[in-house]
Amino acid sequence: MKITEAEATALATGLLCDRGAPPAHAVLQAKVLVDAEMKGHPSHGLQRLPRLIRRIEKGLADPATTGSGQWQSSSFFSVDGARGLGPVVADHAIATAIPRARETGIAIAAIHNANHLGMLAHYVEGIAEAGLIGIALSSSEALVHPFGGTRALLGTNPVAMSIPVEGAAPFVVDLATSIVSMGKVHHYAATGAALEPGWAKDESGQPTIDAGLARAGSLAPFGGAKGYALGLSFELLIAAIAGTPFAPGISGTLDAEHPCNKGDVFIIINAGTDRQNASRFAAYLDAIRHSAPEQPAAPVRVPGDGARDRMTAARLQGFTLDPALHRQLLSLSTQTAQAQP
Amino acid sequence: MKITEAEATALATGLLCDRGAPPAHAVLQAKVLVDAEMKGHPSHGLQRLPRLIRRIEKGLADPATTGSGQWQSSSFFSVDGARGLGPVVADHAIATAIPRARETGIAIAAIHNANHLGMLAHYVEGIAEAGLIGIALSSSEALVHPFGGTRALLGTNPVAMSIPVEGAAPFVVDLATSIVSMGKVHHYAATGAALEPGWAKDESGQPTIDAGLARAGSLAPFGGAKGYALGLSFELLIAAIAGTPFAPGISGTLDAEHPCNKGDVFIIINAGTDRQNASRFAAYLDAIRHSAPEQPAAPVRVPGDGARDRMTAARLQGFTLDPALHRQLLSLSTQTAQAQP
Repeated sequence: MKITEAEATALATGLLCDRGAPPAHAVLQAKVLVDAEMKGHPSHGLQRLPRLIRRIEKGLADPATTGSGQWQSSSFFSVDGARGLGPVVADHAIATAIPRARETGIAIAAIHNANHLGMLAHYVEGIAEAGLIGIALSSSEALVHPFGGTRALLGTNPVAMSIPVEGAAPFVVDLATSIVSMGKVHHYAATGAALEPGWAKDESGQPTIDAGLARAGSLAPFGGAKGYALGLSFELLIAAIAGTPFAPGISGTLDAEHPCNKGDVFIIINAGTDRQNASRFAAYLDAIRHSAPEQPAAPVRVPGDGARDRMTAARLQGFTLDPALHRQLLSLSTQTAQAQP
Repeated sequence: MKITEAEATALATGLLCDRGAPPAHAVLQAKVLVDAEMKGHPSHGLQRLPRLIRRIEKGLADPATTGSGQWQSSSFFSVDGARGLGPVVADHAIATAIPRARETGIAIAAIHNANHLGMLAHYVEGIAEAGLIGIALSSSEALVHPFGGTRALLGTNPVAMSIPVEGAAPFVVDLATSIVSMGKVHHYAATGAALEPGWAKDESGQPTIDAGLARAGSLAPFGGAKGYALGLSFELLIAAIAGTPFAPGISGTLDAEHPCNKGDVFIIINAGTDRQNASRFAAYLDAIRHSAPEQPAAPVRVPGDGARDRMTAARLQGFTLDPALHRQLLSLSTQTAQAQP
């Protein structure tokens, strides 16, 4: 079924407000989930909302808090998320760190004890809107095997980066260091499609193209040994900076039973970019877009172009939502209504 | 032929001192080149020395300067390298920024107008020795095509990261975002070996396994669309932070005709890691090393393990140097001797 941005946002916001989220927190959490849908990444979209609602109901997520932050040193903002909503705690930390970065040239915010962030692009887009360069890292449960290994020992360890470009949308990348997302594997399992060879191993460590078996196994890092090296570096950076566990000790982003103990890191840089530089950026990115493609029918893309095109289309035409998920969300809404006097 | 670390270092140091390098600068530049040889990366080793010597003789590299730095803001150190040797300017900038990072939690150093850095691992190893977390980025000439493209528009854009681990060697990664280095392609061309499919395109943009044709063409990014996205992000980050050109406008790391106008960026983080965390790191990395491998005979490696093993072996047994390169270096030494009164 098709749903509009306004309908989806109202539905998600209502469900969160009904569980005690202040309206501003509910709107922000809803926006992050709906934006992921519109960008074409449903694995980070509304399918996460029923779990988040269970987490709120169980006290594993506190929709009212912005966390408790302190400046560990003058440019290092350390935040105990106090079980808050990921986007609420992170946007608050970033908003606190931005003026410091603007003044000193660079600042860092590290968060522990907050819930799932959703797509990292949201956070670096916010930093770029402030005219600054952003880098975001977040850790997760163990889902990825080492290059040459067979056991899930690393998180999917996404990274996002943004660079503001004057007079144009910022350059934004947001990617996991796994070859595909576990959300995609679940989608393949649901539709009975086979995985591509090399994507996953089963629980016993054998290569598999059976999405059902892969769910209990592990994903490959993207890009072989180099992607593994990057993913492991991000794993260690986050653990060292946020003081959080490594992937095998992390829970709470994929379940409704455990506190969320992953870590999030945001680096914010004020490079004092002048206008000339910014127009130069747009010209370089356009030179890439207009360069000779491998396949004449497939022009070269700049990262972020596809997500932006899908977002624009979804703003006009709405986006596709799984009817079962829609019914589930409506039933959660009804439960709330029935529970009220 | 085999050469020892001491012999190679003395040879390189002597050549640089003879061209006016202060002994400390000559020793540092020699160490960076010889370390690359010992780690098994001759593309960043002594084969770069004859070119560097020509650059010094032509005034494109000034072996005496440490560059001219200023604090653009309290945690952003901006350095005009003044055509200095890459390692000399960068180590000086890092040494200046480390106390600031230690005090404030994070600092950044950005360099333009310095010569080639060699392997980035050196710089983040130095940061880790100071007990801090390091991230290093450096831009280069256009050698890499976009994913889905055919033209060399991106640099090889390497990244290095280090995390100190108490009571053990630091965790260090250092990798280019191209699928292989152009140095490796040159090596294949010299030995007549075929490239692997997918590594490179020729000058006209066609896929090629002919290393000779690939030299005038372009390399693939590693890891498909994701590696391309990362490489392009680093390209833009460096240009925005150091104010340097994009790859198509860069020269001076592969020639002896042009000033070197690439950029270098170092981010230094003081996370205040406590001892407990550090031993936790070693335990996690060991769990990865001892996890079930894909091939029973090939244990899972942690990035940096191979380079460290090769370094240890080379310290004991010396390393292999191309006899033609050795003769060339000796002849440069003789020329100096003859030129002296």
